[in-house]
Amino acid sequence: MLAEAASARGLPLHIVAIRGEARQEIERFPHTWIKWGEIGKMFAALEKNGCGDLVIIGGVNRPDLANVKFDLGALKTLPFLLSLGKGGDDHVLSRIVRFFEQKGYRVHGAGDVAPNLLAGHGTLGKVSPSAEDQADIDMAFKVVGALGRLDVGQAAVVVRGHVIAVEAAEGTDAMLVRCAELRKSGRTGRHTRAGVLAKAPKPGQEQRVDLPTIGADTVLKAAAAGLAGIAVAAGQVLMAEQATTIDAANQHGLFLVGIAGPGGS
Amino acid sequence: MLAEAASARGLPLHIVAIRGEARQEIERFPHTWIKWGEIGKMFAALEKNGCGDLVIIGGVNRPDLANVKFDLGALKTLPFLLSLGKGGDDHVLSRIVRFFEQKGYRVHGAGDVAPNLLAGHGTLGKVSPSAEDQADIDMAFKVVGALGRLDVGQAAVVVRGHVIAVEAAEGTDAMLVRCAELRKSGRTGRHTRAGVLAKAPKPGQEQRVDLPTIGADTVLKAAAAGLAGIAVAAGQVLMAEQATTIDAANQHGLFLVGIAGPGGS
Repeated sequence: MLAEAASARGLPLHIVAIRGEARQEIERFPHTWIKWGEIGKMFAALEKNGCGDLVIIGGVNRPDLANVKFDLGALKTLPFLLSLGKGGDDHVLSRIVRFFEQKGYRVHGAGDVAPNLLAGHGTLGKVSPSAEDQADIDMAFKVVGALGRLDVGQAAVVVRGHVIAVEAAEGTDAMLVRCAELRKSGRTGRHTRAGVLAKAPKPGQEQRVDLPTIGADTVLKAAAAGLAGIAVAAGQVLMAEQATTIDAANQHGLFLVGIAGPGGS
Repeated sequence: MLAEAASARGLPLHIVAIRGEARQEIERFPHTWIKWGEIGKMFAALEKNGCGDLVIIGGVNRPDLANVKFDLGALKTLPFLLSLGKGGDDHVLSRIVRFFEQKGYRVHGAGDVAPNLLAGHGTLGKVSPSAEDQADIDMAFKVVGALGRLDVGQAAVVVRGHVIAVEAAEGTDAMLVRCAELRKSGRTGRHTRAGVLAKAPKPGQEQRVDLPTIGADTVLKAAAAGLAGIAVAAGQVLMAEQATTIDAANQHGLFLVGIAGPGGS
């Protein structure tokens, strides 16, 4: 989607994609596949294609460094690579950004290239949150804010004042699946549709690299978990395929709202 | 175990057990089974058996109030019961304690009756945490403290400075199963045994009612998740079957430590 947006704006682009992480679809655009550890090949591809401006995007699994084959170009960056093994996601990402910047690259956020991919402000679909939903939204953003300051995660689920789940390494999708199971087992009460998934970047997070994301699949999983809706930090969360996502929310009767500056942080 | 400890001390006792929640084993002691909603029957049993001092213990699933049949005695407590549907676990438990106290009962913590059930201070097994483990322990208790202040949960898992999982409604066991899956999928790196499960009561939590608990099963699940050990708030966490639990930790090479006043709260 980002490549499409860039192309539509006439920006020349080249995708450097990590094998096993990026999807085949990127091959529609000029691209170079690299494996984990092929740092030299990556820089060669960037240089050859005149890429001085970077957008770093997409989730990756933490590679098992013991099984990664490093190329010659990687040798130069060994101290940096070794430093990545420790700390939360956020520290790692900040370090990656600085790493590229020190080499003279300009790193941009996906939202800078394609602002239309960011979630807007206010009620985005047809359903509005009730007063009870609003109380859950406020509480959920309070939890997400507190977690974010500790570099833990970007999302939480609150149902009628009760914090049901908090995201850490498992990611939002797995957290929502867990909420659906908790609901089925009766652990969280069997309200009619109630509660909210809230999602916001960590305060002070390197937002150019790790914007939280939602999409139609998030909506489906929130619906399966019996939630009343989804609230995101307006302008700070990527919404994949906006129209499809909003359609899915409308179809399942979920609200979808963008909140300005949630968490008061 | 609590009933055994009380019996050993010559304390007369009567167990009021909720059907579907308490285990059959309680029948070894004088007891009365009640169903959710049989509040009148509960008070009758307490009165008949001269119980002026209570210990409230054991996890329960949140009952679906719509399917609970209330007895006549419950009618008097209807406003109280309706108030329980909202808020986190902690608020609910504080309200339950106050409810009994207002009726003239004295509510005690399990640790008051059986101090030997509480986790001690320092290294409890044969293995000691390394300096890296200690850093994980400090961080994990920081997360648990922040979460507890928001009435979220009592436990977190940190592996080499990375917060892998945070407990909310799913409970510690489910959280550890998730950590094992994350490890298997490579999401958290495949260190040799590393990281810690930290468990502590929420700050300001009604500790007479909802002490965090660990046991041999917790150790097995922490081992399966590849963790290096378990750290608990000393004197504030129930350790079920101490000897078995410590044996399990020794057998799997996990450290088991009680930390005084973790989280600095």
